[in-house]
Amino acid sequence: MLISELGTPALVADSAAIDRNVATMAAVRPGSALRPHVKAHKCTALACVQAEAGHTTFTCATPREVIGMTAAGLGDDLLLANETVDPQRLQAMARLDAAVTVAVDSEATIAAAASAGIRRCLIDVNIGLPRCGIAPGEAGRLADRARQAGLEVRGVMGYEGHLMMVADRDQRRDQVAAAMALLLQAHADVGGDIVSAGGTGTFDLHDLDGGDGVTEIQAGSYVLMDSHYGTLGLPFEQALHVVGTVISVGDGFAVADVGLKALGMDHGNPSIAGGKVWFCSDEHVTFTPDEPLAVGDRVRVIPAHVDPTMAMHPALWLVRGDEVIDRWPIDLRGW
Amino acid sequence: MLISELGTPALVADSAAIDRNVATMAAVRPGSALRPHVKAHKCTALACVQAEAGHTTFTCATPREVIGMTAAGLGDDLLLANETVDPQRLQAMARLDAAVTVAVDSEATIAAAASAGIRRCLIDVNIGLPRCGIAPGEAGRLADRARQAGLEVRGVMGYEGHLMMVADRDQRRDQVAAAMALLLQAHADVGGDIVSAGGTGTFDLHDLDGGDGVTEIQAGSYVLMDSHYGTLGLPFEQALHVVGTVISVGDGFAVADVGLKALGMDHGNPSIAGGKVWFCSDEHVTFTPDEPLAVGDRVRVIPAHVDPTMAMHPALWLVRGDEVIDRWPIDLRGW
Repeated sequence: MLISELGTPALVADSAAIDRNVATMAAVRPGSALRPHVKAHKCTALACVQAEAGHTTFTCATPREVIGMTAAGLGDDLLLANETVDPQRLQAMARLDAAVTVAVDSEATIAAAASAGIRRCLIDVNIGLPRCGIAPGEAGRLADRARQAGLEVRGVMGYEGHLMMVADRDQRRDQVAAAMALLLQAHADVGGDIVSAGGTGTFDLHDLDGGDGVTEIQAGSYVLMDSHYGTLGLPFEQALHVVGTVISVGDGFAVADVGLKALGMDHGNPSIAGGKVWFCSDEHVTFTPDEPLAVGDRVRVIPAHVDPTMAMHPALWLVRGDEVIDRWPIDLRGW
Repeated sequence: MLISELGTPALVADSAAIDRNVATMAAVRPGSALRPHVKAHKCTALACVQAEAGHTTFTCATPREVIGMTAAGLGDDLLLANETVDPQRLQAMARLDAAVTVAVDSEATIAAAASAGIRRCLIDVNIGLPRCGIAPGEAGRLADRARQAGLEVRGVMGYEGHLMMVADRDQRRDQVAAAMALLLQAHADVGGDIVSAGGTGTFDLHDLDGGDGVTEIQAGSYVLMDSHYGTLGLPFEQALHVVGTVISVGDGFAVADVGLKALGMDHGNPSIAGGKVWFCSDEHVTFTPDEPLAVGDRVRVIPAHVDPTMAMHPALWLVRGDEVIDRWPIDLRGW
């Protein structure tokens, strides 16, 4: 089948670009130095590509992702890098034939994990992003409580998400170093073998100046990329787009059938190769094409944010050139 | 089951509020004076509530919605208020045991519909929103071409989407009247029984000053509502929210498990009853609670935009007070 035969909007990824992105990352962060974050793609077929490149430890954001990765045979070492107190979902993860580690940042999350039968945790540390994570100075005490509750404490994690988009690379590196100093301070009190941090925007800013102690990076977006990360000049190429069909041509604009139900919109409008986007509606994108378009023509829409875009589609079409070579279910959707 | 027992994030709608919203609309726009737009909820169980209130004609945005509505026994008069040139999907709609009408705004969309076996159309007219629709002065000529192609032309449609959020009601009414003048001009040239327009923001601004000729309104959001429409002072109440669980409490903020994969974000951040939202991440909302919260507490998150929020969830939990009384699949998702 050809791309031009796909019903639209169609989520499409270039196989060669994925392979190059995976190879580029694996060269800098081989094996378990990368714990790929599956929330970015929610697709076990794509996780298999990462596993074949040597990464067999994975990061998840939801219990559903942990359970789906295990069902796909990728449960060697799964980190739920997020807090939950849901007893049913914690019990479901504890029952898996998989090595599951969960993030905890409070006595309540420790109690919920331990009573559900979860056996391993990381202490989640707030290193500047106001989200989950305990204050660095309290991490050691919390680790003690986790051990008292019967959990193995494998180390610490901290996500410097507030620094991912610092435009200047040197500034980004300096700010990441300051955040990692907080994480290492916590790790000294917590113990364990793992210091987990980072993302696509900071994947090569750790451990490069004599070692900052970070043992693994949680990047995910690098495999497919989006226009937001595309502004940073990272060595990853845009592998993902949403194919649309021009359904109407107006006076100075055209309309394609890729709307905000097919695109993560929290980072703003998508981009269109060969056009300038005006706005999105539920099922439309209105844009100025660089060259005149006719009804029926195809366009390539590049999402501003890959993670929520993936979660909106049932499947990813893998392509080589103009040919569709596979259909990969987005099988980790939901919670 | 109680709401407090639902896994989160959970999409929840209040049964009594839905009933009141449906009754309020049906009083102003009874029977076929309303053609409810199912894109707002993508849920045939909710469409059945609208049908029980007397509305048996429906508006759809995608072929999938047309096909799913037919499967649910709601195919008496379905309007695809959108353009498509997809031959497979047009043929699939033509084969349905349903009365399907499609919007057309070009010779290409007419040709695609006619050759697929579609029998009825409306001429989609651009009345100010730069999206689909032919210029009003060309609508009559296009209707002639549609009839030559063998299509029954049932009338015209035009969506004044650019006017939905005009804050002042009198200004909104005046601007709607000007847009409707364009639509009526087109209708005079096109003929047919239907003049279809409007939405939740303009549902009572048509036909109230001696008749503007509009025969039906395509409102959809009124059933569930969102915080964006909530700013207009419409007589509809917020029936929908996403229930979240507090998973972390920081210094001056709390974090719940309702993120941007559970919320349509194109209209901006959601609201939280009893809190002030800072920002959303994939699986988190960080907010300041008005009163201290503890891990495990539940919060109600109100989406800024109902339509894409619905499309992100597999099911809607119908509740009465604190009790969950039904689970309604969001069965019209996709394209």
